[in-house]
Amino acid sequence: MQEITRKMKLDSYQMAALSLETRNTILSEIAKALTENQEAIFAANAEDMERAERDQISTAVKKRLKFDEHKMQDVLAGIADLIQIADPVGKVLLERELDESLVLKKISCPIGVIGIIFEARPDALVQISTLCIKSGNCAILKGGKETASTNKVLFQTIYQAALNAGAPEGCLRQAEGHSEIDELLACHESVDLLIPRGSNQFVQYIMNNTKIPVMGHADGVCHTYIDESADLKKAVPILIDAKTQYTAACNATETLLIQRDVAGKHLKEIAETLKSAGITLRGNREVLSLIEAEEMGDEEYNTEYLDTILSIRIVKDVDEAIAHINRFGSHHTDAIITENMDNAEKFMNLVDSAGVYMNCSTRFADGYRYGFGAEVGISTGKIHARGPVGLDGLVTYKYKLYGNGQMVGDYASGRKSFHFKDIG
Amino acid sequence: MQEITRKMKLDSYQMAALSLETRNTILSEIAKALTENQEAIFAANAEDMERAERDQISTAVKKRLKFDEHKMQDVLAGIADLIQIADPVGKVLLERELDESLVLKKISCPIGVIGIIFEARPDALVQISTLCIKSGNCAILKGGKETASTNKVLFQTIYQAALNAGAPEGCLRQAEGHSEIDELLACHESVDLLIPRGSNQFVQYIMNNTKIPVMGHADGVCHTYIDESADLKKAVPILIDAKTQYTAACNATETLLIQRDVAGKHLKEIAETLKSAGITLRGNREVLSLIEAEEMGDEEYNTEYLDTILSIRIVKDVDEAIAHINRFGSHHTDAIITENMDNAEKFMNLVDSAGVYMNCSTRFADGYRYGFGAEVGISTGKIHARGPVGLDGLVTYKYKLYGNGQMVGDYASGRKSFHFKDIG
Repeated sequence: MQEITRKMKLDSYQMAALSLETRNTILSEIAKALTENQEAIFAANAEDMERAERDQISTAVKKRLKFDEHKMQDVLAGIADLIQIADPVGKVLLERELDESLVLKKISCPIGVIGIIFEARPDALVQISTLCIKSGNCAILKGGKETASTNKVLFQTIYQAALNAGAPEGCLRQAEGHSEIDELLACHESVDLLIPRGSNQFVQYIMNNTKIPVMGHADGVCHTYIDESADLKKAVPILIDAKTQYTAACNATETLLIQRDVAGKHLKEIAETLKSAGITLRGNREVLSLIEAEEMGDEEYNTEYLDTILSIRIVKDVDEAIAHINRFGSHHTDAIITENMDNAEKFMNLVDSAGVYMNCSTRFADGYRYGFGAEVGISTGKIHARGPVGLDGLVTYKYKLYGNGQMVGDYASGRKSFHFKDIG
Repeated sequence: MQEITRKMKLDSYQMAALSLETRNTILSEIAKALTENQEAIFAANAEDMERAERDQISTAVKKRLKFDEHKMQDVLAGIADLIQIADPVGKVLLERELDESLVLKKISCPIGVIGIIFEARPDALVQISTLCIKSGNCAILKGGKETASTNKVLFQTIYQAALNAGAPEGCLRQAEGHSEIDELLACHESVDLLIPRGSNQFVQYIMNNTKIPVMGHADGVCHTYIDESADLKKAVPILIDAKTQYTAACNATETLLIQRDVAGKHLKEIAETLKSAGITLRGNREVLSLIEAEEMGDEEYNTEYLDTILSIRIVKDVDEAIAHINRFGSHHTDAIITENMDNAEKFMNLVDSAGVYMNCSTRFADGYRYGFGAEVGISTGKIHARGPVGLDGLVTYKYKLYGNGQMVGDYASGRKSFHFKDIG
């Protein structure tokens, strides 16, 4: 793996220098190859689905493993969109004349070599590899083992099309064995960024065992806070959506915080509605004094259920809600339901999360829903990229300085001086 | 230290919410307090200078330790500039209507708690603490032990002024013992970013021993490449500036690469000029066949001298220069001297460094010279910030989503759809 990533690193400079036209041609050739190879891809997917059947994998997971006509149309539409999207590379972020004939340009450029470890979803392989190509990066891809057969055919199809259209040999690599993940973690000299997606423990493991910068999220402990002045006609449907629309997602709400007066008046009826929606409720003693629910300890509020289970806690006011979220949350996405704009602004300014929402479902935290096109992941870190990460998170920048013989000594001695004039 | 940083983390939410007016008031109160306390500061500095004298510290280092009227005027001017600089916090980076009454805003915000470990320079303490305050961050500061007395008085002056002007208690902390650095490295739950400045080994040690993201640079192996079509009247003075103007700096050139034909014709006279400028030359066998110099091995070209010593290597062309730099360099700053724009562009696109220069000295890589105001450090990483890092590198962003009862279920089912309209 060291040898592979070292070679990719060398090829990454060529990859970074490909023109937009070449990168877009590679993308359209990939789309063409996927269409031409679709029977082989579907056949490989049938193998994965049979294995899933034999292994008695749940229906929900099987839905994600499946790669059919419909999913194929989705990924092809995704590639067509990606071709249209403006080039993230070569953007002039700053152009400044420091002095006569001394011009500084800050230009966006690819990161280099990115390792992405993702769940068993064949469409994710297509999305991730095409996002990396559009942004001029080389990528090492490791998908979930449940879709090994599909991924193998998809990867070969994409890789061959990319090579034929002018990409360097190291543009893409597939890692297949799980042992290769550990090898990859040691390649900090050649790999610039890791994006792990998957379970909490898995992402935590990656974060704790590599010197490579990691972008991603381990937990998704999201909150919905019903404020004193909430409109309950909005609050309850939002809460049900945030909890149940897709429970396995990291942006599903895990904890309901509710202001004490509202709880006193309305928690009973809210709880009935939530229960009718199939949600199991848990709460500390104060909650249990108002409604029937499973008892939980005050220190358990950092639990991520990824299921139709909801923690409930009663808080004094928006300040206590903010303090609870900053302590027990995972800095992912948290919502306030309120008609009071002051409380909303306070909440949105003081809650230290990638997404802070007013009067809508935490489930909106997603690259597609933000209009970014596909996303490579959601980051709960604050460094580099935060929240849903699309193409913008896959580039960095470099400073180009164009001179005509200038020396620092002349400026240090005062013979010359800077005049800093931003251009364009 | 765990307890201290945990408290700072809680205060960081208040710090992040301070208005620009308050942050600027804090800065002007700090400037006032520094002026009022200057006699005590100079007296403390005299103690440090006496100790330096006793310890026979070099004149160059003593120059950095000294904090006199002149340095005081510099730091006060720096604070005055900083007050004028536009607010890095609260910038609207994106404003998009996802659907009717569903508006997404991407807003810049402080990172939180930043740990900065810096060299023995009292002015650095003032610069770093004021940059953190301007950007709404809490900071833990650890300065070099050689200026312990000066730093103590400076820190107390700054900290008291900040508290009096409305900063939260945890806005700033000073770490004094060296053992506190190791404790700080373990505080990944409360500290969001570390910025170490100092020696190569020290920064490497920090990078290898913490889970906290680190921004900085260990090595500064910078190159100047004299291309086939270089104008030698520019090349030689630039090279002397890049090597000798301040040898201890990370952006000083350590290696001269020279195109083979140019070397054959001109290396002899170039070498004479460099030697007259007091530079010791080193080179591999090919270099030694042309000039007198110390012999070095082909694998030694990753050496950072921080002294008036220069490695020389002869290369075939710009491609070989690029390959050499990407292999032996430290991704800091590298320059090409050429009159051929195609070679310049190739070099600037393919060299994988934070700064890629044409026809000027590598010593320009500096926040002041880029017009950023003061810098907190120079990053050779590619994630988050690259090159000289000013205020922009001390902020991140959050996504605020303003809704009116929206649920994801409606969009997933097709009852509603996004229309993505960028505003403003």
